[in-house]
Amino acid sequence: MARLTEKQAKLFTDPNWGVIGTVHEDGSPHVTPVWIDYDGANVLVNSAQGRTKVKNIERDPRATVTVLPATNQKAGYVTVSGSAKIVEKGALEHMNLLAKKYLGEDGYPYLGPGEKRVIIQIHPEHVDGFGAGS
Amino acid sequence: MARLTEKQAKLFTDPNWGVIGTVHEDGSPHVTPVWIDYDGANVLVNSAQGRTKVKNIERDPRATVTVLPATNQKAGYVTVSGSAKIVEKGALEHMNLLAKKYLGEDGYPYLGPGEKRVIIQIHPEHVDGFGAGS
Repeated sequence: MARLTEKQAKLFTDPNWGVIGTVHEDGSPHVTPVWIDYDGANVLVNSAQGRTKVKNIERDPRATVTVLPATNQKAGYVTVSGSAKIVEKGALEHMNLLAKKYLGEDGYPYLGPGEKRVIIQIHPEHVDGFGAGS
Repeated sequence: MARLTEKQAKLFTDPNWGVIGTVHEDGSPHVTPVWIDYDGANVLVNSAQGRTKVKNIERDPRATVTVLPATNQKAGYVTVSGSAKIVEKGALEHMNLLAKKYLGEDGYPYLGPGEKRVIIQIHPEHVDGFGAGS
């Protein structure tokens, strides 16, 4: 279990987008942009049941997230890899917090009918960074 | 073989960072930020022999690159997946072009002793985008 430095954690709590990588059933990489967060121990991504990255993690929990600072991509980056867990509890409330952080809105405006939000909780096992992410 | 729209191509030719995903020997995802380019048919990433992403591609050519616009991450994204090829010819010249694009410098200032640059050439097979990347 690795712990993020304060600078690394800030890349996750500031309104930067992350890019998450998981592995498809055929072994090829799946890479897609996501809103991100950090709870002091785990990297958090909010998603919904049935999404590709969630299905990939249910089959193979190995995930990795890279973040560059939105205000200055040259300033550095951090990449966190580890085993991911799908958590249902508190996922909608967490999505609303992210809507505030990224959109400045009080609730997540894009919730589809019957959509079940989930939190992807990544336990950092390997942390790699440079500059703002070191 | 997929072709990028003009808007998608612009995300690669503008000075945005990309994030490339490949697969490690143990099947876990490798995700890391990279400078990017587009030659009209292929997504280009410049790297060096021996780097993890290059070794991964030599073993399993499946790669995917995600780009968000640096000036406004909310504006959209594009993800390009396909089979990658490692090309040595013209790699140093290409690195110098990227140094100009990203650093405003006339030559790549970080070339290590004996470092052999390579171009990772990704043939787009699947393109997925939203907003600025649609």
